[in-house]
Amino acid sequence: MGINWEQVCEQSKRRLRGSAIRDLLAITTQPDIISFAGGLPAPELFPVAAVRESFDRVLRDHGADALQYGPTEGFLPLREWLAERLSARGMRATPDEILITSGSQQALDLLGIVLLQRGSTALVEAPSYVGALQAFALREPGYLPVPMDDDGMIVSEASGLLEARAGRVELIYTVATFQNPSGVTMSLARRQALLEVSDRFGVPLIEDDPYGDLRYDGTPVPAFRALAGGADAAYLGTFSKILAPGLRLGYIVAPQPLIRRLVLAKQGTDLHTDNLAQQAVHDFVRHNDIDQHIVRIRDVYRMRRDTMLAAMERYFPPSCAWTRPAGGLFTWVTLPESVNAAALLREAVGQKVAFVPGVGFFTDGSGTNTMRLNFSHAGPERIEEGIKRLGEAIAEHLALAQAHRVAALV
Amino acid sequence: MGINWEQVCEQSKRRLRGSAIRDLLAITTQPDIISFAGGLPAPELFPVAAVRESFDRVLRDHGADALQYGPTEGFLPLREWLAERLSARGMRATPDEILITSGSQQALDLLGIVLLQRGSTALVEAPSYVGALQAFALREPGYLPVPMDDDGMIVSEASGLLEARAGRVELIYTVATFQNPSGVTMSLARRQALLEVSDRFGVPLIEDDPYGDLRYDGTPVPAFRALAGGADAAYLGTFSKILAPGLRLGYIVAPQPLIRRLVLAKQGTDLHTDNLAQQAVHDFVRHNDIDQHIVRIRDVYRMRRDTMLAAMERYFPPSCAWTRPAGGLFTWVTLPESVNAAALLREAVGQKVAFVPGVGFFTDGSGTNTMRLNFSHAGPERIEEGIKRLGEAIAEHLALAQAHRVAALV
Repeated sequence: MGINWEQVCEQSKRRLRGSAIRDLLAITTQPDIISFAGGLPAPELFPVAAVRESFDRVLRDHGADALQYGPTEGFLPLREWLAERLSARGMRATPDEILITSGSQQALDLLGIVLLQRGSTALVEAPSYVGALQAFALREPGYLPVPMDDDGMIVSEASGLLEARAGRVELIYTVATFQNPSGVTMSLARRQALLEVSDRFGVPLIEDDPYGDLRYDGTPVPAFRALAGGADAAYLGTFSKILAPGLRLGYIVAPQPLIRRLVLAKQGTDLHTDNLAQQAVHDFVRHNDIDQHIVRIRDVYRMRRDTMLAAMERYFPPSCAWTRPAGGLFTWVTLPESVNAAALLREAVGQKVAFVPGVGFFTDGSGTNTMRLNFSHAGPERIEEGIKRLGEAIAEHLALAQAHRVAALV
Repeated sequence: MGINWEQVCEQSKRRLRGSAIRDLLAITTQPDIISFAGGLPAPELFPVAAVRESFDRVLRDHGADALQYGPTEGFLPLREWLAERLSARGMRATPDEILITSGSQQALDLLGIVLLQRGSTALVEAPSYVGALQAFALREPGYLPVPMDDDGMIVSEASGLLEARAGRVELIYTVATFQNPSGVTMSLARRQALLEVSDRFGVPLIEDDPYGDLRYDGTPVPAFRALAGGADAAYLGTFSKILAPGLRLGYIVAPQPLIRRLVLAKQGTDLHTDNLAQQAVHDFVRHNDIDQHIVRIRDVYRMRRDTMLAAMERYFPPSCAWTRPAGGLFTWVTLPESVNAAALLREAVGQKVAFVPGVGFFTDGSGTNTMRLNFSHAGPERIEEGIKRLGEAIAEHLALAQAHRVAALV
């Protein structure tokens, strides 16, 4: 009879959630398209020469060790460096509380393996990071989406949802700082309240913080693990946005009982993260001032954000609204309710500009009139030109819709 | 109330299978212990200088690209090189049928995500690779273990088990060549029969082949995908044993409908495999003769295998039996039925020698009197000395057991 692959793979459909973003990356590689779609860092800012020196030094001095199998927990000196850096920010972080992961994405997968199963429930922001929804989907949970405002997740709503379910929720997931996709940052008061909710209902709180270092204005808000009563919160960090995403190096900081389970899960999924990359990144942070490098990234991205926001003021119709993020990589646009951003995207791509329709960031199919724009990847001139094109595409779309409505009335 | 981590993690116990091997790696790092426990390649054979040159060249010529996010499917030129290499061995392999994975371990995890769910059944060899059992366990399947003889899995038994379940099995998993842990290779006739069984019942056949290149005697047996009717078989390969495991580079070759699902699963688990490592390994295979390097590895491992087998003849009690593998990294020892290898291990570690008790390679708790010995990592003198110590530990253990039996009779 042979293998009927459609039938064999059928039951996996429930948990394999395609990502519009990944599919769009194919488009973004066409050089004539100005893409605000991906979450790509600016490659011209990668410290290539210094990274090259670090790989060379590690392979020269510790080559055989770096190429051999390594511990699942990760390269100890890198975990020690992270523990020191995070502790200096008031976070609880010993090397034993840190697991190196193959990018933050893997930390999300491992958390799903340990905390979720079919029938579990994850409380998430609406909108939420699509990669987290993809990772969690592998475990087939249900979701409780919590609306956001300019101060982040509306914690009183989260509390109400938990109350209504008597706390029967398996995890709370938040990108509290410069959220992907919205760009919004949760206020300190909300963080304290959410920590209190997590504690009261005994539900693990997971903070995903890929962008925290990329603040362009204002003062930092502490991570949950740096707050009073935050010792039980899990914290996800990454080198993707401050160094280079291609190396796939992330980490999770969490209480040891959780770390021990995550290590077992990681043994089953990839044994350990690239040993050479870990050693080279450790060499890099020892021989270079990463904070100075971060300042350089911030200066460039701040300007790009400002360029994009100013261009939107100029070129977007007044019926559009958008966030003004103090950091991170994204702004979030709300179009008039009648606009379907996916339909708009097809027209925009025709005009050689791309973005991500917002619907994929929601768990309930809402947000059809929203979109995410990235301002870190393209240079200022392309941002200006791309926003101009996008503004025209939106205006045309609205005019066409208006014409249809008039025609329908006649 | 705070988080009760034991309670929160409780439901994950079913799927988090600890690996005795990984735990033993801690022991193997003590320099005074001669360890036959891990599956570690000999680090002195890593082509460190050439790998260093490749990393340097890629970072010099394509640095920004190699450090940026890459496609989930993997670096296309590496997939093209693999397709050509595997096709030259008669295998069906186009670049579109190849997915680069973070080690073979990840391929096993991804296959589990797509093919298995709670209540699924995996047909496996008994014994089977413990890492596969760990990866599959994340999906909580049941197992059908199939006994082996010197020609590998006894396919008539597999057929009977499938018949009895009317083919309701989700996958067949085999390490057909120089199996981990047994060292046994499945004969061509058995492979043809197993392929026929897979086809007849419509059950996907997964061949995990980390050791196929490491043949020390005899002639190669073709992979399933190189046999007539083998186009539906999945094939897992890796650079871990022929180049370096620390880079975590593996791949899976499979029909496109399966690859497409595996790509979606990989998006959720780690987005993509380390881009720089992929590009550097591609540079390595372009600038170096990997087959010449493999010949060098083979020559060293052949000698180590011979050293170990000769030492076992000399030092092991006649009541022990073991396999004589024509390749790979392992021999498999069957001790007298009364011996518990886990208890023996504690005594052996006291005498500064280590191995892996075989029980972890079985899904049903059997094999308590078996153990796996690795012959690739230690040099000949340490192999000789380690087998001598282990032979003494076994003899002492048997004498003590004999004394207990006599005492019990008196």
